[in-house]
Amino acid sequence: MPDQSEITPAAAAAERPFLKELIKIWRAQDTHGAWEGKKDLDLLDPYILDKRKRRALPIVGNPDPETIWRLQLFFDAIALSIEKATGVMISPMLKMHHEGFGRIVLIGGRLVVVSKQLRDVHRFGFNNLCHLAEQGDEIVNSGVEMIREFPEVANY
Amino acid sequence: MPDQSEITPAAAAAERPFLKELIKIWRAQDTHGAWEGKKDLDLLDPYILDKRKRRALPIVGNPDPETIWRLQLFFDAIALSIEKATGVMISPMLKMHHEGFGRIVLIGGRLVVVSKQLRDVHRFGFNNLCHLAEQGDEIVNSGVEMIREFPEVANY
Repeated sequence: MPDQSEITPAAAAAERPFLKELIKIWRAQDTHGAWEGKKDLDLLDPYILDKRKRRALPIVGNPDPETIWRLQLFFDAIALSIEKATGVMISPMLKMHHEGFGRIVLIGGRLVVVSKQLRDVHRFGFNNLCHLAEQGDEIVNSGVEMIREFPEVANY
Repeated sequence: MPDQSEITPAAAAAERPFLKELIKIWRAQDTHGAWEGKKDLDLLDPYILDKRKRRALPIVGNPDPETIWRLQLFFDAIALSIEKATGVMISPMLKMHHEGFGRIVLIGGRLVVVSKQLRDVHRFGFNNLCHLAEQGDEIVNSGVEMIREFPEVANY
């Protein structure tokens, strides 16, 4: 058994099921093997916006395609995690407006399993890996609960 | 009372509630008054694809922005008609893939009130005004029924 004191918070976060799912999705994008030398957690580095990085970003701005892509992969990982927990197929739909406003929904059957208004998408990120894992788990759990509450709509 | 034999099928179709809603939405787009001289039914003319017009279109193609806009106004009219009938606020979300494939959903609360897979969007149109009115009414009715079946999800 490893000495618990040697496990860093980042390594512990990497064991959380949501981050495992997210890493798998990122690996699946790497069809040309460009990231083969990269460690799992380094793949998720673009999600981490600490105070210093956040300060460097403008308050208002149009999100670039890379940021929208990262956001979509984040919600793809949530969709897959909900699928695994419930067996209900989940499809994401994203609607972006100007200047980083938008809405994302995850749909299962005729049920909107997850619905998020998006703001400041150009600043989409998390303080640290634990925060990323927590936020992901929280959304997954709320989606699973919705399906348990309205199974006849999710399986319509 | 007008002589029934003088009412053309087009004029009769124009009295159907769905077409009235659609015309209202088209008028609302006309912020510069460019269509002021146009009759109501002429506004809807781009929706009518008879055999001759349809033959002139390619089998496979990317829809142009005008066609997607027409499709969106069609579903906006459906959303408003469902709102009027049920009091539930409806938001459309459109996802377009390549070559005219896609999906549109109308969402009320946490309920997917209408869900349509889209194919051949570049050929989006109807044989005639009656067909347009019928298709619109049919989708409106199916949406209203969904809300009546699952009111607790629509009002979540």
